[in-house]
Amino acid sequence: MPTTTPALIADSATSGFRQGTIERRDLRPDDVRIAIAYAGICHSDIHTVREEWGPAHFPLTVGHEIAGTVVAVGDEVTRHAVGDRVGVGCLVDACGECEPCKDGMEQFCTKPSVGTYNSQGYDGEWTMGGYAREVVVSERMVLRIPDALELDVAAPLLCAGITTYSPLRRWGAGTGRSVAVVGVGGLGHMGVKIGAALGATVTTISRSTAKADDALALGASAHIASSDRAAMRTARGSFDIVLNTVSADIPIEDYVRLLKPGGVVVNVGLPMQPYSVRPGALIGGNKAVAGSQIGGIAETQEMLDFCAEHGLGATIEVVDAADVDAVWDRVVEGDVRYRAVIDTSTLTGG
Amino acid sequence: MPTTTPALIADSATSGFRQGTIERRDLRPDDVRIAIAYAGICHSDIHTVREEWGPAHFPLTVGHEIAGTVVAVGDEVTRHAVGDRVGVGCLVDACGECEPCKDGMEQFCTKPSVGTYNSQGYDGEWTMGGYAREVVVSERMVLRIPDALELDVAAPLLCAGITTYSPLRRWGAGTGRSVAVVGVGGLGHMGVKIGAALGATVTTISRSTAKADDALALGASAHIASSDRAAMRTARGSFDIVLNTVSADIPIEDYVRLLKPGGVVVNVGLPMQPYSVRPGALIGGNKAVAGSQIGGIAETQEMLDFCAEHGLGATIEVVDAADVDAVWDRVVEGDVRYRAVIDTSTLTGG
Repeated sequence: MPTTTPALIADSATSGFRQGTIERRDLRPDDVRIAIAYAGICHSDIHTVREEWGPAHFPLTVGHEIAGTVVAVGDEVTRHAVGDRVGVGCLVDACGECEPCKDGMEQFCTKPSVGTYNSQGYDGEWTMGGYAREVVVSERMVLRIPDALELDVAAPLLCAGITTYSPLRRWGAGTGRSVAVVGVGGLGHMGVKIGAALGATVTTISRSTAKADDALALGASAHIASSDRAAMRTARGSFDIVLNTVSADIPIEDYVRLLKPGGVVVNVGLPMQPYSVRPGALIGGNKAVAGSQIGGIAETQEMLDFCAEHGLGATIEVVDAADVDAVWDRVVEGDVRYRAVIDTSTLTGG
Repeated sequence: MPTTTPALIADSATSGFRQGTIERRDLRPDDVRIAIAYAGICHSDIHTVREEWGPAHFPLTVGHEIAGTVVAVGDEVTRHAVGDRVGVGCLVDACGECEPCKDGMEQFCTKPSVGTYNSQGYDGEWTMGGYAREVVVSERMVLRIPDALELDVAAPLLCAGITTYSPLRRWGAGTGRSVAVVGVGGLGHMGVKIGAALGATVTTISRSTAKADDALALGASAHIASSDRAAMRTARGSFDIVLNTVSADIPIEDYVRLLKPGGVVVNVGLPMQPYSVRPGALIGGNKAVAGSQIGGIAETQEMLDFCAEHGLGATIEVVDAADVDAVWDRVVEGDVRYRAVIDTSTLTGG
């Protein structure tokens, strides 16, 4: 018999949330049951429920920045034990056998991978996310949260952390390298912290100077307002990596111009319009425009360990379940500094 | 007193060539004078003279795939001696002091670098290329041609060789990697040879199957006609690297689809239209679209040494100076297999 757990439930793209209960499956031999302490609010949650990325499957509980404690384990579980502090990110299953899985890129599993919510599991059931008191997940997809990280500031690392860590590592952010982070929000603020901890010199770029002081406090060495055309011109040829965390359409070639020879603009947001870039803008400087999507399981563990070692949690605002509809509007307006995290003890179950 | 040397001279974008003489400067202390044996014909020569890339400075002698022998050296020359077999590629000067120069990317010198033709040297003089009997170049920009390479098949390596070697190396072509080379022409045929010699499995892609047999003989394992939509669909997700050597506009996203997760489409041709690629096509697979332009001096030497070690020369057709106008038309039609090389002993001087 499946168990029920309190959760925030959306019944349609426009309904807002109601408090209620959802079912979690009985433990399979490889499953762990996690008592969720905190669930981060990611802009993807909003895009999904509001059907901005296509039809969603309702009723729906979202959330893929999950931090909590193991409360039960299946018979064959070896990696995690009751009482362990753990996290779950954007993935709850992958085949483990295809080339991307073997290469540690479960997010690109060809079966394909199963998302933490609004996704059909291999059993055909629709997945439900972390705005809930409990979740049941195969141990293979569950991460250890090191003791040095509090659960509330760790929760956003499971998406915002890995989404910025993975491209910064892949593209070589480190000592002597110059990184620009475009957008100072949930993703961008983690990009600044991680980039600086990796040893790179980080500059933030956003539309105005409103977040300039915050950016410096997060670890940036400088801030550029993209509306300041003279500053953008001066910055040409300055960066090895431009990490674009903005989901709005931006003139990508303006950011390619900011690169040194051999540099890359790597995008983690998902705007609507195609990127348009003149061939000469890439060829004249051995430059690249790339994309990056979350990270694999081993890489996510590596990121958590790195953040623990460097004392990096997200900069958060803890919110009550009853306030999530209002908080979502603030997320869309870029008003949250820098990640809202739901205290799941405020879920009433109805 | 400058010396004169027989050369092919274009007086305008539409004049075709005449035989005549051009001046070469007296040796500076760091200069070497090279008796040119062979000069490769690159499509860039044609674009430049026909002003397809902007206004050209006439009268103009082009050519940046130069192979020959040192016949004189300046007082301070230490790297080359009379009798040495040498080559000159697309660059004849660079400041040597800026960050790109120090990083071995003289092609992106911020001063900027000086092209082998149609470029103003630091002395203000317009450079004239290799369709000539002699050239005078600073020793810093002169490459050694290993004894294992004949001068005629070595000449095209100075542009077509380095243009394909540099991106294949940078993006990790090697054993266990899968490379597609788009376009089987002057650049593409060297991409196949070098990619296979690096240990990668190489597939060629061109519009039809006309060059399929040649491609296999050059070292490819398979050939795909891009007009065969079923074959292109089957090839999705197959390649780590797609090296696009085509200067025509191609639907770049179709080639992004051919990549495995983490793969890159790297372009070395210079089409007219911007690349257009949907963000999701890059993000959903950690993919990149990149450009690459020739290579630095040390890297060019490394390429020549690599080609000598693996017995790789260009596949060439030796042509007379008198026939170059006609050969250019054949280059534009893709009819040369795979590089035309001018025997400079056929230059008459008038």
